[in-house]
Amino acid sequence: MKNIMEMSREELLALRQSLQTEYRRYQDRNMKLDLSRGKPASSQLDLNNALIGAMPTAKASDGTDTRNYGLLEGLPEARALFSELLNIPVERIVIGGNSSLNLMYDSIVRCMLFGTGGQTPWCKLDKVKFLCPSPGYDRHFAICEDMGIEMITVPMTPTGPDMDMVEELAANDPAIKGMWCVPLYSNPQGICYSDETVDRLGAMKTAAPDFRIFWDNAYGVHHLYAEHKLKDIFGACEAGGNPDRPFYFFSTSKITFPGAGVALIASSPANILEIRKRMTIQTIGHDKVNQLRTIQYLGNAEGVRALMRNLAAEMRPKFDLVLNMLERELGNTGLATWIKPDGGYFVSLDTMPHCARETVRLAQDAGVKFTGAGATFPYKKDPEDKNLRIAPTYPTLEELQPAMEIFCLAVKLAGVEKRLSEI
Amino acid sequence: MKNIMEMSREELLALRQSLQTEYRRYQDRNMKLDLSRGKPASSQLDLNNALIGAMPTAKASDGTDTRNYGLLEGLPEARALFSELLNIPVERIVIGGNSSLNLMYDSIVRCMLFGTGGQTPWCKLDKVKFLCPSPGYDRHFAICEDMGIEMITVPMTPTGPDMDMVEELAANDPAIKGMWCVPLYSNPQGICYSDETVDRLGAMKTAAPDFRIFWDNAYGVHHLYAEHKLKDIFGACEAGGNPDRPFYFFSTSKITFPGAGVALIASSPANILEIRKRMTIQTIGHDKVNQLRTIQYLGNAEGVRALMRNLAAEMRPKFDLVLNMLERELGNTGLATWIKPDGGYFVSLDTMPHCARETVRLAQDAGVKFTGAGATFPYKKDPEDKNLRIAPTYPTLEELQPAMEIFCLAVKLAGVEKRLSEI
Repeated sequence: MKNIMEMSREELLALRQSLQTEYRRYQDRNMKLDLSRGKPASSQLDLNNALIGAMPTAKASDGTDTRNYGLLEGLPEARALFSELLNIPVERIVIGGNSSLNLMYDSIVRCMLFGTGGQTPWCKLDKVKFLCPSPGYDRHFAICEDMGIEMITVPMTPTGPDMDMVEELAANDPAIKGMWCVPLYSNPQGICYSDETVDRLGAMKTAAPDFRIFWDNAYGVHHLYAEHKLKDIFGACEAGGNPDRPFYFFSTSKITFPGAGVALIASSPANILEIRKRMTIQTIGHDKVNQLRTIQYLGNAEGVRALMRNLAAEMRPKFDLVLNMLERELGNTGLATWIKPDGGYFVSLDTMPHCARETVRLAQDAGVKFTGAGATFPYKKDPEDKNLRIAPTYPTLEELQPAMEIFCLAVKLAGVEKRLSEI
Repeated sequence: MKNIMEMSREELLALRQSLQTEYRRYQDRNMKLDLSRGKPASSQLDLNNALIGAMPTAKASDGTDTRNYGLLEGLPEARALFSELLNIPVERIVIGGNSSLNLMYDSIVRCMLFGTGGQTPWCKLDKVKFLCPSPGYDRHFAICEDMGIEMITVPMTPTGPDMDMVEELAANDPAIKGMWCVPLYSNPQGICYSDETVDRLGAMKTAAPDFRIFWDNAYGVHHLYAEHKLKDIFGACEAGGNPDRPFYFFSTSKITFPGAGVALIASSPANILEIRKRMTIQTIGHDKVNQLRTIQYLGNAEGVRALMRNLAAEMRPKFDLVLNMLERELGNTGLATWIKPDGGYFVSLDTMPHCARETVRLAQDAGVKFTGAGATFPYKKDPEDKNLRIAPTYPTLEELQPAMEIFCLAVKLAGVEKRLSEI
């Protein structure tokens, strides 16, 4: 297809007609497909089926009876495995329940109700703001919105958030208390923070002494096409004189089973002391039987990496399909730009400005559900209404093919319509 | 032993000497026993070992793949089983993670940050108070203390909290926002709330429109010697025109495995709507694989009841031992009073006034750890320093025997010393 910016009105009208004919053919097929959430496919989960009935010995390595109460911080072998995998000292790690999102939520709750680092509880302040690199993860933004935390959109660059802007804002506004980061294979763009970005995050001056980075390393071992390395945020923050800045989150949700895995929070010794002091009021302990089951199944850090290679092999054909089709259907058309991710769970695509919402509507009306336009921005407001998140993993390859055909058709139709309204 | 109130100073001095000799013999045995927490014994947990490696089909009854994200409110079969067991409509039940304590904590967090029933968030108020029937559960009180909620001690009676006092306080102080209740086999006294108590809790006027009863039915099916029935708190509150008053909590912690079980919160339709609205921001969902594993293992309500009968048979000899020894060693001595519980996890004993702390110290110095004196009261302050909680379940019978011998000896020594200081 020719670049639509070079098409005449007549050419555009003819193109629209043929696209509409094609679109109606898809509508007639009455499909019902869902590419909206980053859910693993059944075929991925099947790779882990041995875990379901895995029978751990009830005793952990230190003699703890996992069937009984106790051991708030988690089993030694669980902390040790993640310490090895993520290169974080064991004593900085607290194992949680099944959900890193829940650990993030609880961390914000603690800051709201009790404060952190000896500072005023955030709920006692007139205004609390967070920096939100965007496009980003909608569930991060939903927590802020629910808590009444004002979100400031920060654009993403190929090396991470726009650090000039981040530094400027954080240095001058004491109400800015935190920042969301998905530093490796970011949701949704698959962007990996550069070493310089991590260093600047660790070193920057912040007007708030209790500024916290919510470091959601959700895709820390989720490589697909290449293995990017992420610089150590703890080291960067310590070097910058800000050891208590990061709250680090990770989980096995997309390693073993979403919802039945093991999550963790890691932080500085001072923060971990704070967290444990509050967590011991909140619960007697998390599910140690599942911790042991999971750790025995994974074995060690190399066991996790081997598992992730198998999962990547299962997922890659889907990403190939998406990326190849985008290239073939939308490449050099002027209708869309996108980033090829080397890992993670998503492909992020920008339509022409003011076409994302219409694209999602068209796809939906032809039976394919995508993440709502705007969802990747604070308050669901994409200023240019152009960013869309494609989640290729959940459908089968056979379902993904027509879903992506419809998606590309919707991008084209919305774009051509827009262009026609302008010339 | 004669009642010490009838002993002369000389008799008391002679008694003290013989008790001290006996005490030193126990000290020389260098025992190390722990009766401090309500933990099940290994032998109890062994009854459930089939659960550890239980292999659920991954699919729930409604076709949900338990291995994947989703179904915030829990599996239909989990909600159905607890609905049958506890006689609560399914739609009022939300299944949580592994800990009912965590659900209680989260419920208070929601009230603090967001308010409930459209009222002001509690964290925005100058003062929030809770009614705390005491002796009670130390972890309830710890949540209040952590949140800065002022606790008001309400005495217990054989039919539940002193309802005259509860009604009087709740009706006149709008800062009183809630009340802790363990309505069946209360922790630690094993008291069961009478129908009248439940009715009065449901009907009473409260100055705070958002007054909430935290109904921790932790021992709802944990019968030992007799099966007490608990009147339906939802019905009582509805009859009283206060349908949104109760938050109801339950878990399988002391049915299957503590820490690896399934917990739930139940409440009115309006409250459940509130809870779900917030919970969906907090987590994508709880562990459904463990829900299915647990529910398949339990089968149905009768399966739970049968299991509890087996557990009771396992636990009863320990309660027999404790109660028989208390009767034999301390009966009619004037040194202590206690209640024989028909269920639950504890035996509560009152020493002579101002003797509890010294009793615990003496037992500790002879190698037996008890729950700290005062722990059963708000701020750990037992006004008369007399209540002690005995948790018989965790040790073996062989360990429990000398531990209780030491306990009784400690009660006697502390009491005799006290009496000697008075005459």
